Amino acid sequence: MYRKEIKVVDCTVRDGGLMNKWQFSDEFVKGVYDACVEAGVDYMEIGYISSEKAFDRKEMGPWKFCAEKDLRRIVGENNTKVKLSAMADIGRIGFDDIPMAADSAIDMMRVACYVHQMDKAVELAHHCMDKGYEATINLMAVSKVNEHDLEEALADVAKSRVPIFYLVDSFGSMHCESIQHLLTKYQEALPGKEIGIHAHNNMQLAMSNTITALMGGATYLDATLLGMGRGAGNCPVEILIAFLKNPKYRLLPLLKAIQEQILPWQQKIDWGYHVPYLITGALNEHPRSAMAWMDSERKNDFVSFMKEMHDYELLE
Amino acid sequence: MYRKEIKVVDCTVRDGGLMNKWQFSDEFVKGVYDACVEAGVDYMEIGYISSEKAFDRKEMGPWKFCAEKDLRRIVGENNTKVKLSAMADIGRIGFDDIPMAADSAIDMMRVACYVHQMDKAVELAHHCMDKGYEATINLMAVSKVNEHDLEEALADVAKSRVPIFYLVDSFGSMHCESIQHLLTKYQEALPGKEIGIHAHNNMQLAMSNTITALMGGATYLDATLLGMGRGAGNCPVEILIAFLKNPKYRLLPLLKAIQEQILPWQQKIDWGYHVPYLITGALNEHPRSAMAWMDSERKNDFVSFMKEMHDYELLE
Repeated sequence: MYRKEIKVVDCTVRDGGLMNKWQFSDEFVKGVYDACVEAGVDYMEIGYISSEKAFDRKEMGPWKFCAEKDLRRIVGENNTKVKLSAMADIGRIGFDDIPMAADSAIDMMRVACYVHQMDKAVELAHHCMDKGYEATINLMAVSKVNEHDLEEALADVAKSRVPIFYLVDSFGSMHCESIQHLLTKYQEALPGKEIGIHAHNNMQLAMSNTITALMGGATYLDATLLGMGRGAGNCPVEILIAFLKNPKYRLLPLLKAIQEQILPWQQKIDWGYHVPYLITGALNEHPRSAMAWMDSERKNDFVSFMKEMHDYELLE
Repeated sequence: MYRKEIKVVDCTVRDGGLMNKWQFSDEFVKGVYDACVEAGVDYMEIGYISSEKAFDRKEMGPWKFCAEKDLRRIVGENNTKVKLSAMADIGRIGFDDIPMAADSAIDMMRVACYVHQMDKAVELAHHCMDKGYEATINLMAVSKVNEHDLEEALADVAKSRVPIFYLVDSFGSMHCESIQHLLTKYQEALPGKEIGIHAHNNMQLAMSNTITALMGGATYLDATLLGMGRGAGNCPVEILIAFLKNPKYRLLPLLKAIQEQILPWQQKIDWGYHVPYLITGALNEHPRSAMAWMDSERKNDFVSFMKEMHDYELLE
């Protein structure tokens, strides 16, 4: 599966932080960073870039903000081949909060948006590009978007200068056919742009959906150590690297980071395949209700959770 | 994904028993059985059928043998739509040990074999058919079989009366392309026969490989509750049922069995995705070394396990 254009994007800190409000120690983030460097991972997404006014530092750890002083403590000058990326949510960051790329450790800004925010997403991505960053747009929750709205949004992206567009399975509800269908749609609507894939594991299909997208021509592949990420988590980067058998990547440093940094967190928070996440995924719903259930004392009462879901008859 | 011919085969007790020597309580086996009945699962594989001379009852639980008295304690007359199957290993069962189907609770015998045992497998399957059973042949470890040997074995099966042949990913090393390649090969070599799929989850591809086979025309789909099975486990039956959205199946009874019967075992034994299983899967090796590692005190020292694997350079 060797293809020169493939870029593996480790999102452990950014997506994993959705499970612990980015309360990672510096040692953890440095461990993930060192692993990415040694493994030859192309990008490390180190967090969200957010305005200090949008969230409280007392609640959210540093990787919700990606302030320059925090970044530099981990990566110094980042004289490595790993590029750093940060995710920007529409409305949570002002243009003035974003430094010039030349003054920042961040190389790439990934703008996450819902379909009705596409014009704002293009505007923010253009702004980042004008400041010297690479940029992507990641359209979330596409499994809930109707065809007309999607086509309008894609037309906006097609007209933009943004070179990379992401297929995001936010709810973990897709399988190979839906991935292939959307990928083809994106490719046809966006000639000359590269496509990325960001999968969730609610139906244990994150790895295979990533492969499906890769085989269909996607080049940016998101993954996380041991699949650490929101809810059911993501495509595990160690499986992806083992699968790619690409000489530019090494597996061993990733395994080291898993055993040293990730396993202790696995004792504390419940990402990964669990039945409540299957239920929201199969229903094509946001995982928030499953996450709340997993945080409750009834986490293992799957029957009650399914009965509480509004339209559980669908699955009964 | 509605297709009338689809048969879901729950292998929880048989494959899960590989992790605990079939030391399940009657309550557990009855819980799985009741769930299969209520969920509309087509077959329940309740264990191996083995000669009492081949294994010690002091070491192995009843579901290594599937003696009639043990079966009846669970299923009585089995006046339900669920059919029972048992797996037979070549050399572990004599013809004389197999009762007539009319006298047995078992409906289907599945003969597991390696490629060099295919003539014996056909002979045993024919014997079972002559006694009134349905029969399948499940060719194990096919990812290690060279093309010539595979074609010879398929020619033997083609000439046989055995109506169902299984694609088995014993090492969890396959992905959609290898599944599709083998499935097409099996279908071309075995006109008129049905194909089954039995996947393992070493690379988190068991569910997707099962879907790939289903879409390619496989009709017998093996799965287990919460993926319980040897090493990395199997395709989780609850995901498969949620995915199929077939009105003949119900998800809720499976969730009940998971929370009541399977979760307690999850505290005791380590099936499912773990890094040592990824390593053997990616190397296309039997999981036994990973299972031994997972039973040791160094289970979470993935780096050392990878270094101990003979040809770890492949993945380094």
